Amino acid sequence: MAPLLSGLWPPVATPFRPDGSVDEPRLLAHSRQLLADGAHGLAILGTTSEANSQTLEERHRAIDVHIEAGIPGGRLLPGTGACALGDAIALTRHAGAVGAAGVLLLPPFYYKKVSDEALFAFVAKLIEGCGEKMPRILLYHIPPVAVVGWSDALIGRLIEAFPEVVVGLKDSSGDKANTLRLIQAFPGFAVFPGAEAYLLDALRAGAAGCISASANINAAGLRALLDRWQDPDAETLQAGLTAVRKAVESRGLLPAVKTLLAERYGHAGWRDVRLPLQPLSDAARAELLADPAVASLLVEAAAA
Amino acid sequence: MAPLLSGLWPPVATPFRPDGSVDEPRLLAHSRQLLADGAHGLAILGTTSEANSQTLEERHRAIDVHIEAGIPGGRLLPGTGACALGDAIALTRHAGAVGAAGVLLLPPFYYKKVSDEALFAFVAKLIEGCGEKMPRILLYHIPPVAVVGWSDALIGRLIEAFPEVVVGLKDSSGDKANTLRLIQAFPGFAVFPGAEAYLLDALRAGAAGCISASANINAAGLRALLDRWQDPDAETLQAGLTAVRKAVESRGLLPAVKTLLAERYGHAGWRDVRLPLQPLSDAARAELLADPAVASLLVEAAAA
Repeated sequence: MAPLLSGLWPPVATPFRPDGSVDEPRLLAHSRQLLADGAHGLAILGTTSEANSQTLEERHRAIDVHIEAGIPGGRLLPGTGACALGDAIALTRHAGAVGAAGVLLLPPFYYKKVSDEALFAFVAKLIEGCGEKMPRILLYHIPPVAVVGWSDALIGRLIEAFPEVVVGLKDSSGDKANTLRLIQAFPGFAVFPGAEAYLLDALRAGAAGCISASANINAAGLRALLDRWQDPDAETLQAGLTAVRKAVESRGLLPAVKTLLAERYGHAGWRDVRLPLQPLSDAARAELLADPAVASLLVEAAAA
Repeated sequence: MAPLLSGLWPPVATPFRPDGSVDEPRLLAHSRQLLADGAHGLAILGTTSEANSQTLEERHRAIDVHIEAGIPGGRLLPGTGACALGDAIALTRHAGAVGAAGVLLLPPFYYKKVSDEALFAFVAKLIEGCGEKMPRILLYHIPPVAVVGWSDALIGRLIEAFPEVVVGLKDSSGDKANTLRLIQAFPGFAVFPGAEAYLLDALRAGAAGCISASANINAAGLRALLDRWQDPDAETLQAGLTAVRKAVESRGLLPAVKTLLAERYGHAGWRDVRLPLQPLSDAARAELLADPAVASLLVEAAAA
């Protein structure tokens, strides 16, 4: 497996202080823990990071926090998409300046029904605007949230025009058939499923790795399947991942993930999310913690 | 009609220079022309202004440009919504500091299927965060674009909790039944249809005014109906507005409006839009200019 833009890149969740500000020391501690658990790098500033609920200034700062703490830029894959091209260029340049492994690029998501032509031009202008600081791009395809997505025709055109830059895609469509089709359609293009429910099938088809919210609480489990997907116990590993994923997803993915991080780190503040998301209710939390898949995960983490 | 938050508030289109930057002198000239044409005030930084395609810095600057030119804050109704509460607070405070008549507030629009509870909390935190600088709010309801919208139940709750602040709503649902229902459901609440296709019916039901993209090119026409909706020629005025609206809407609302502004002001640069929108093709432009409703509008503007 190539060292960059493959493997496990958890979309790092963001802890907040009681006053709502980003808890930078706990963010760093979590990022370090994920690397220790087997992550190849850190997909900071994604949907799971609540990046779009952070001010533009906070988003720039999240990159600096990691660099200042000595985490190499090559371990970072920040989300730098924005509705305004100018904001996206500024964030992407910043990521490029610190030597980020790449950026996860949302399409501009305010206007809907925009043309492939316009999205192509948006990416072209972004690349032009970043000049020599342009890091590699993983297209971020998450139509259930952003609504605007990257079509197959557009992906093909972008790869052809910018083969050194547009090198992959995170597929958070939740649609296994879509992931498998993209892998087949674009050989050499790094496709990352955005969830691990069908990770084994995706790896067998040629997926580059995984970028999944639940990697925040199950990085070691995900890494195990990435390393051993050709081993006889791969189906068992996949079943374990699927059980954990279902446990969190059925209760509200991000609030559930942060609830488990609060348990793992023994810090209730981790349960906080920013508006317009809301934390799990006490009842949902109790139900989540009683889920067998979750309970065994927490025991493993405590023993590690 | 009360002087504020009623009447005609065109969502001011934004001209760009060849390098893509905001053409501030032409923006101001257009704003002044709209006031001269009969607008009660200026809904800057809306969807038609391509506000979400402008950087956060440009959005702050658009407010200052008007104030520095001597346009009173009370004539401004800036859009200050943002996905990040912190960005929305900063913009709204800025609008409050210059004495804006109000702000048009989009809900945070990245995450979908968010709860009314969370949107209520978002508005409450915004009001808290702005403190004494809090201007009045017009909720901005545009589900065809933002997807996230303001439900009737939530509107009722916001009015009850913040009766002095949450004073109205711009309804860009495109759904006449929705506008009429809101007017009936919330007496005293200022409801502005986001398009003039059913303006007469809305005014008869008690609408506060109109905030419509096509007001950029037909402010005098819209003002005439607002002033004379009880006159015998009201149906004729409405028919004229509807014809113009259809001419632009059927070709792509904002690019068509900007194409007509280029004609009116004799400046081709007005045709430019920012990505991810695209300007009208030459063919669509020719078709638009040949539309009888548009042709007579341009003749009237030239004669004025």
